[in-house]
Amino acid sequence: MTAGKTGRLIGVGTGPGDPELLTVKAVRALKCADVVAYFAKQGRNGNGRAVVEHLLSPTVTLLPLFYPVTTEIETREDSYKSQIAEFYNASAKAVADHLDAGRTVAILSEGDPLFYGSYMHLHVRLAARYSAEVIPGVTAMSGCWSLAGVPIVQGDDVLSVLPGTMAEAELARRLGDTEAAVIMKVGRNLPKIRRALETSGRLGEAVYVERGTMKNEAMIQLSERDDSEAPYFSLILVPGWKEKS
Amino acid sequence: MTAGKTGRLIGVGTGPGDPELLTVKAVRALKCADVVAYFAKQGRNGNGRAVVEHLLSPTVTLLPLFYPVTTEIETREDSYKSQIAEFYNASAKAVADHLDAGRTVAILSEGDPLFYGSYMHLHVRLAARYSAEVIPGVTAMSGCWSLAGVPIVQGDDVLSVLPGTMAEAELARRLGDTEAAVIMKVGRNLPKIRRALETSGRLGEAVYVERGTMKNEAMIQLSERDDSEAPYFSLILVPGWKEKS
Repeated sequence: MTAGKTGRLIGVGTGPGDPELLTVKAVRALKCADVVAYFAKQGRNGNGRAVVEHLLSPTVTLLPLFYPVTTEIETREDSYKSQIAEFYNASAKAVADHLDAGRTVAILSEGDPLFYGSYMHLHVRLAARYSAEVIPGVTAMSGCWSLAGVPIVQGDDVLSVLPGTMAEAELARRLGDTEAAVIMKVGRNLPKIRRALETSGRLGEAVYVERGTMKNEAMIQLSERDDSEAPYFSLILVPGWKEKS
Repeated sequence: MTAGKTGRLIGVGTGPGDPELLTVKAVRALKCADVVAYFAKQGRNGNGRAVVEHLLSPTVTLLPLFYPVTTEIETREDSYKSQIAEFYNASAKAVADHLDAGRTVAILSEGDPLFYGSYMHLHVRLAARYSAEVIPGVTAMSGCWSLAGVPIVQGDDVLSVLPGTMAEAELARRLGDTEAAVIMKVGRNLPKIRRALETSGRLGEAVYVERGTMKNEAMIQLSERDDSEAPYFSLILVPGWKEKS
């Protein structure tokens, strides 16, 4: 145990992909941090890091946290669950060592840290023990509907954010029970999502966006897109606000 | 009709309230704009403008767009609808006059422009005729759950964004049919929202946040708050992600 003061933990939302969509607060936190931690696949730099690369001082300590498994494994399996829990425990320990040494640690989180972000696994392990702050970020979905120029919700509209992993009938039911929807985790689920949109009568409105606000961004009416696998950074927008006036 | 090039329209998300939560892109757009337009109540400056005040050049043209009516009027009434449509038409015309003169017009939008923002009423009237760009912003709800340190959704969680204006039974049904929820438009609806949360068994988890990321921000477990009217900038968070590991 050191006698000194412990460091500060900062979860930093890095936004949807365009480095210009970092907040002023995130930029300042990243320039001042002693340690910048980030999640990535083995041997990769991670998208969060690419977005902030230009801001990092040459003396900053980088702490990559490499996922032990790919997302190809069924996430409901017990072996996956215990492997990933061990990974988050070890990651929290690595961050805590820096905090105990009095260093400020910024943890990158693509989009917004507490909205489907890996950062929250460290937050729940560390925030009670250390001084912690979360800097919100622009979500991927905001980036996508802004790029597409699609007003997503207005007035008393309900918005449903739905994972594309959901069973087809359940997805169709929820699409029929909301004004607007954002469907995440498109990937290989695209044919199923299309059928659920068709069943619920929403296919004609649906817009497919991939890599919104990144260099190779693209968008198309879903009805005009084929069923080939979608990249990781893709989602489907079903706009609400019927009256549009 | 001028012979010159028309100007550019930019919808600028100003984030949840903390000026530091503006994006780098928004700051740049605001510094370069010839005209900065913003919605406000009669005789007020509007919250969006307060957030960007420090960025505006002394030579910028300010274009306030004053709402003709207060939100106290029942928004489903026909007289309200026609009055507000006329207001958006006139506002679009005022902005178009600047665009026709070749000026870049930035329109402030609290939070994210296409997420329940007034900006979208001008977007649908102007974006097809002029070069238009939307700069996404951090939403009020992201600001609130970040301030509260509440992980809102993880993995395959469904998130429902619900207006507190909804009928009580409908609200209770939807709260029982989602992992996570954000309830907007709390205001005078708080007692009803509390009952709907109780009916759906979610009251114990609900967190009330007002003016998230602003100077006088506050948060409390909803079960500990009284039923007095909530300010405009308030919402209720019902977090998902039960396993939290």
